[in-house]
Order: sequence, then structure tokens, then C-alpha cells
Amino acid sequence: MWQEDPVATHAAHTAPDADTRAMRRAVELAARGLGSTSPNPVVGCVLTDPAGTVVGEGWHERAGGPHAEVHALRAAAGAARGGTAYVTLEPCDHTGRTGPCSRALVDAGVARVVYAVPDPTPQARGGADTLREAGIATECGLLAAEAEAGNAAWLTSVRRGRPYVLWKYAATLDGRVAAADGTSRWISSAESRADVHRLRAEADAVLVGSGTLRADDPHLAVRGAEDARQPLRVVLDTRATVRPGARVLDGAAPTLVAVAEDADTGHLAGVDVVRLPYDGDGLSVAALLGELHRRAIRSVLLEGGPTLAGAFVAAGAIDEVVGYLAPVLLGAGPAALADAGIGTLSEALRLRITRTDRIGTDLRITAVPTAPKEH
Amino acid sequence: MWQEDPVATHAAHTAPDADTRAMRRAVELAARGLGSTSPNPVVGCVLTDPAGTVVGEGWHERAGGPHAEVHALRAAAGAARGGTAYVTLEPCDHTGRTGPCSRALVDAGVARVVYAVPDPTPQARGGADTLREAGIATECGLLAAEAEAGNAAWLTSVRRGRPYVLWKYAATLDGRVAAADGTSRWISSAESRADVHRLRAEADAVLVGSGTLRADDPHLAVRGAEDARQPLRVVLDTRATVRPGARVLDGAAPTLVAVAEDADTGHLAGVDVVRLPYDGDGLSVAALLGELHRRAIRSVLLEGGPTLAGAFVAAGAIDEVVGYLAPVLLGAGPAALADAGIGTLSEALRLRITRTDRIGTDLRITAVPTAPKEH
Repeated sequence: MWQEDPVATHAAHTAPDADTRAMRRAVELAARGLGSTSPNPVVGCVLTDPAGTVVGEGWHERAGGPHAEVHALRAAAGAARGGTAYVTLEPCDHTGRTGPCSRALVDAGVARVVYAVPDPTPQARGGADTLREAGIATECGLLAAEAEAGNAAWLTSVRRGRPYVLWKYAATLDGRVAAADGTSRWISSAESRADVHRLRAEADAVLVGSGTLRADDPHLAVRGAEDARQPLRVVLDTRATVRPGARVLDGAAPTLVAVAEDADTGHLAGVDVVRLPYDGDGLSVAALLGELHRRAIRSVLLEGGPTLAGAFVAAGAIDEVVGYLAPVLLGAGPAALADAGIGTLSEALRLRITRTDRIGTDLRITAVPTAPKEH
Repeated sequence: MWQEDPVATHAAHTAPDADTRAMRRAVELAARGLGSTSPNPVVGCVLTDPAGTVVGEGWHERAGGPHAEVHALRAAAGAARGGTAYVTLEPCDHTGRTGPCSRALVDAGVARVVYAVPDPTPQARGGADTLREAGIATECGLLAAEAEAGNAAWLTSVRRGRPYVLWKYAATLDGRVAAADGTSRWISSAESRADVHRLRAEADAVLVGSGTLRADDPHLAVRGAEDARQPLRVVLDTRATVRPGARVLDGAAPTLVAVAEDADTGHLAGVDVVRLPYDGDGLSVAALLGELHRRAIRSVLLEGGPTLAGAFVAAGAIDEVVGYLAPVLLGAGPAALADAGIGTLSEALRLRITRTDRIGTDLRITAVPTAPKEH
């Protein structure tokens, strides 16, 4: 007499199904490209044969290189025929530096394509239509939230026409970024400072204001990773006060200095300078982000200081906040965030904490706006 | 042929042994007395018979009531003879409102007493000596750190001659306790505010400064617990500015108003007032804590505001910090901690984060000084 196996039945109800497992793996693979695919998205792909066995994996490794699907199809070496392709982003339908992935999947004979997030770009969208026209079953939306999160910078950039902005700060428990006399080395732990280099390595650009430049003479290059792609160093320097010998102007990485339209830049010969209009007391954040977008910058790590961060909050241009909180009390000294045009509690920028991690002796808090202001 | 069971051997190496399990249980039991045993310590006791079976449990439930050992011995009803007593604190050796526990354990015929922390008080210490003289084996130190932590308020109070001070604050991610216009309701979540009532219920006294009094007219009583013992409400009010109709002076809980020696208190007839000397610009924190110690206050919840907290940090009188961090950004408004006499980073009060918890939408950070300053 046949009996249902209660253990197996239970497992079927609680374990993720094969589709979810494969897509989760594709999301993991996609993340391997963070920091090297810009201005392209990160994409992961898993291929199975008709029996559901994984026969190929791939991810988009670098801009200009093959797409995730192409890597996976090469790995599968024909074994995906009649099987399923799991892709974190709708397969592209256009010929850029590589051919359309929709066509490659049709040619490989896959029977079904499951993708997490539709492609929002006018140039590349339409891959799912091409697949369907070729008789391939397509499904959209599996693990969409995870895939969206993994591609937050690129998707924000495409949807809003400006780079994704992550504001990073390091402060004491009472919110200070320096002591009363200006000393700030080191408030945060060595582990936190190393973690900031990881954030830099994942960003297309790193941004500081002239106050931080004068106070710290920061270098802003990624250290500790020999082959790391260096982000563009951007200095918001209204009056062009940056000294020609500043560390940020050395050859370790490209640098862009954003100044006011009427600033005197005679001392900055050979430096990449962009002139921006004013917006109130400071340079226009929107104009700066527009300029960076034109330069194919998809993500910006806003490193400081408090005044610049305040301008970004006021402009509604913060997409994520990463705070390194050191277990230190000062009772005096500048706050992590200066004037953001918020006068009363009901105008506050409210966030949602997405994760908290102990980093060395510090606490890292990651948060996103609950209702991002558009600008 | 006899063979060692590899599973059992492995378990013996990784699972806590019977002594540790029993003491851990005693520490759990002790915690049930938090908030109702002061000015006594919290104590838990587990009794086993000679075979190691638990035959009695007890904890010190309230000041004036039986000690933990007596409760446990009653529960054991004679079954602990020849067994072991696990106690979180060295059994007392003196006759107060109850008889000495050392004597009770001897009379019950226990063969062995394991206690976590020695009793530091001149009146009660010596219990272990009495036990040894009666031929009972004694061991000290098992789970001492856990037992110390559970009794931190009482032990601090005994060792330093002043109450244990827990500073609680609620702030935004950028360290503000109010917006630029003074609005502060509500920065933290309802769950965080409820959690503060738990802290109040566990404290012997709740302390605010006159700035908070004027700004918020706080009630400071414990709500939500019908039978909660109310902490002493203490107002540090140098110039005796408290209005006779202030909520903190109602009958819901006792209140002490600490004023300067030269303050005019004519309007405070019938109010419990204590006069304190100055220490610099403000009243002496040490004198205030000394007065509270004389009143058998073992723990103080320092609720604010920033100026008072700064004075406590400057006095080296903070034993623990609990911060409710709301995922909110303001960019302006008063900071959680005002001047603490710290001018440069090397003078900062450095803490160690002991735990982090999500409370509603907020993050609760608990920390203790890494090297407490004595005063």
C-alpha cells in the first residue's frame, strides 16, 4: 500500500521550491559584479536542464564583457536545451557591445525564462516579448524585492535620471563627528574604516564637500584592493578653494571638482572642473547629480561632511544611509548632519532600518527613507 | 564489548554541565526580583538532591520577605539533604528582617554550596565561612559575570557608596533629542516609550533636570503596571523653579526636589526638598548621589535632559547607557548630550556596546563604560 511520506510532504511545504532556489542563487551570483559592471546593472543567471538540474551559472562581470546569460550558456554547453533560465533582470533585447541575450536564449533552445525584475530602459527592454514570440514561456517577479535591492543603484539611476546616493557617516552615540577642538581621528574603529573602503569600491563616485577637504585633506581612493576599480573622486567646492597639492588631486584615481559658475579656477589648470548653478546658499545638488548622470555615474557615496549631507537631505537626494556609530560620548563638537531645512519634527526625514551589524567595536546601521522625496 | 558512545561524549564536551545549568537557572530566578527587592540584592537559588535532581527553587521576591535560599528550602521540603545549593550571591550570615541563610542551609543538611558572587557587605558577608565551619563544601565564582550583571545596581551601590546610574536617552540617528523648534513628540516609537516604563519600574529613582521639567512637565511615574512599585521621582532643580502644580509633584509616587543651598523654596511647602552644594556651574552630582544613597536608593534612571546628562558624564557617574535611536534625520535641534567637560577626542567617554535590540521601528543600544571613572 502506498503511503505519503509525511517528512517529504512537510519539506515540500517549508523548503523553497526549485524555482526560488535557482533565483536566489542567481541573485547571489549577480552581487559578485557589484563595483565592476557600472554603468551596466549587475545580473546573475542560472540555467537548468529539463530535469531541473543546474547546468550553467553566470553573472555580468564587467561593463563591456559578456552578459550573465552568455556566461551561463557557455558553461551549460548545450545542456540547457528544453530547460529553464533564471535571470535577475529581464534579458536584454538590444545589441550593444554584446548581442541581445533574448536571441542567445532562443538559439540555445531554453523552454522557459524566469526573471525577477523587468528591464526599465528604453534601449534594452522588450527581451521578454522577443522570448514569447519565439514560443518560450516567460515569468516575471520571482524574488523581485531581493533582485531590486541587489540592483538598487542601477535601477534608481535609470528610473530617476540621477545616481543612487548612499550617505555614509561615522559618529559618536551622541551624534558628533568630531570633538569640540575638531579632533576626529579616530572616532570609529579600524574595522569600520576598512568597511568604508568596501563601500567606496562598490560606488562609481565618492563625494565630499570643501569643508571636509580643508579639515582632513582626504585621499578618497580605495586602498587595500590592488585591482580595485577606483571610483571618481568628486569635490563640491563652490569657491574653488582646493589646493593644487591636495591629495584628492593626485593620480590615484580620476577627480572632478564642482565649482560655482563664477568661481576663480585659475590655479586648477589640468583639473577636471565643472561649473554648477546655485540653489539657495549652495550649489545645486540636482545639477551636480545631473552632471554625474551624464558621465554615466550610477552610484555616489556621499562621505561628508555635515553641511553637504544637509544639502542632500534638503534636496531629497538620499537613497540610503549607512551610519557607523562608535560607542563614544563627547557632549560637544559638530553633529553628523547640519542644516537640512527641517524646522520641526513633522518635517523630519523618516527612515526604515534595514539592517544593523557590529563592525569591530562599532555598530553599523543601514536605513532607507520610508517615503523618498523626489526632486 | 563496551564501547564509548561518541554522541554522549560529544555532548559532555559541549553541553553545560549540571552545575552550570543549575546556576544559570538561579541567575534567571534572581532576575524575577528586579524592581522589588531594593535596597536588597536580587538573589536566585536552586537546590538539588544528592542525585543531582532539582528539588527546590526560590528567589528573593521583595525587601523584607524571605531570602532566595529560604524559599527554595521550603519548596524542597527536606529533599535537599545531602544535596547542593546553587546561589547567585554568597548566602548571608546575619540576622536582619530574616535569619541568616548560612544557618538555614546548615540546618537543612545540604552537603555543598556553590555561589556565584561573594557578598561585599560588611554586615552580611561571612556566610561561606559559617558554611565551611559546619563542614559544608563551598565553591565560589561559577557564572560570576552573569550573576554580577544581574545584580549590577546593588553591587555598584555597595562597592561605590552611590547608586547605580543608567542614563537613558532617545534621539534621532543624527543625535538630536528635539527639532529646531523644540518639538520632540514623538521621536521614538511607542514600543520604545513603553520600554522606558520597564526601565523606570526596575529603578529605585528616576531623575530629571529642571530644563526637562519646564519643557515637558513629565509625570515620571510608571504606567501600565497596576501593582508596580513606583520609583522615587527626583528633580535636580538648582533655583527651585518647579511649579507647585507640576505633574511630578502629584501623589502618584514620592518626589524629591534637589535645590541649591541658597534657593528660595517658599512655594514648595510640603514638598520633600534637599539642599545640595555647588560643583562648578551646577549642583554637585556626587552630593546628590550621596543623598540618594543615604535614602537607600540603589539605582537611578537618569532620564534627562542633555545638560544633566553632561554633568553626570563629567562627574564619571554613568554606569550604563541605554539609547533609543529613532531612524529619523533632523539636521538641527539640541543634541542628546550637552557639555560634559570633554574638549578633545582623547578625553571622550568610551563605552562597550553590550547589546542591540530592535524596539518597534527604533534601535535600542545598551553600552557600559570601558573604564569607568571613579568619583
